[in-house]
Amino acid sequence: MSSKTTRHNRSDCPLNVALEVLGDAWTLLIVRDLMFKNCNSFNALLNAKEGIATNILSDRLSRLEGFGIIERQRDAQDARRWVYRLTEKGIDLAPILVEMLVWGARFENSQIAPETLAKMQADPRGFAARIKKQWLNQQAQNPEQVAAQG
Amino acid sequence: MSSKTTRHNRSDCPLNVALEVLGDAWTLLIVRDLMFKNCNSFNALLNAKEGIATNILSDRLSRLEGFGIIERQRDAQDARRWVYRLTEKGIDLAPILVEMLVWGARFENSQIAPETLAKMQADPRGFAARIKKQWLNQQAQNPEQVAAQG
Repeated sequence: MSSKTTRHNRSDCPLNVALEVLGDAWTLLIVRDLMFKNCNSFNALLNAKEGIATNILSDRLSRLEGFGIIERQRDAQDARRWVYRLTEKGIDLAPILVEMLVWGARFENSQIAPETLAKMQADPRGFAARIKKQWLNQQAQNPEQVAAQG
Repeated sequence: MSSKTTRHNRSDCPLNVALEVLGDAWTLLIVRDLMFKNCNSFNALLNAKEGIATNILSDRLSRLEGFGIIERQRDAQDARRWVYRLTEKGIDLAPILVEMLVWGARFENSQIAPETLAKMQADPRGFAARIKKQWLNQQAQNPEQVAAQG
């Protein structure tokens, strides 16, 4: 289990500490692309349709790694490149993302496959649990990574 | 039911549109204080322990009103003052806040009453539903507001 980040917070309310980590317009989009879209390289993340700038992506990846939400490894195919992955702390953001998706779809103009939205709305926690299960299966198929997480 | 906000978004992914509304470090803290702490005036919101600056609070209240998440009325006791309240779109942020609280409490150093956290963790959607029920009861006790909301 990852240790908790130690730093000076504006307050010790758990919502506040979460917002000090997640409270910007880009961070959770990067988590989304790692979680749902199998984007695991800098270039793949850069090509998200929201058009994140190189310097912002670079900064947010570094913060996410600092907070223990993602980890990076050298690409086995090309050692000059990094591969990014969510940690357990990162995959456990799934319930927040699912609830934000449901709220965004309900109250703002957006596009999402109706059957996916229906599943999220009917059982947001169950949907998030299935995402985590897939992540756990991937970890099991990659023992090196599991060992690195300790 | 509030109509959806029409504006140019970075993309039409429902998570992205939610983040364009909510993705900053202060917005959801203001929602928290309106939702959980009965802070309904500018000064009460200004006194939150995170120490929000006057200009930021003013800007975020104006954005939240623009997005239809809060509404304001003249204070019945003192017509020079505004009273702020969550709309239905605002109270429906409860599941997002609850999941963020649970994640913050789990992975970051924070303080929250263990019995409250246990209830949130056991049934986040049920906890959020009870918050909404309280809000609906308050609306019913204030028919003027319900009428204003249409």
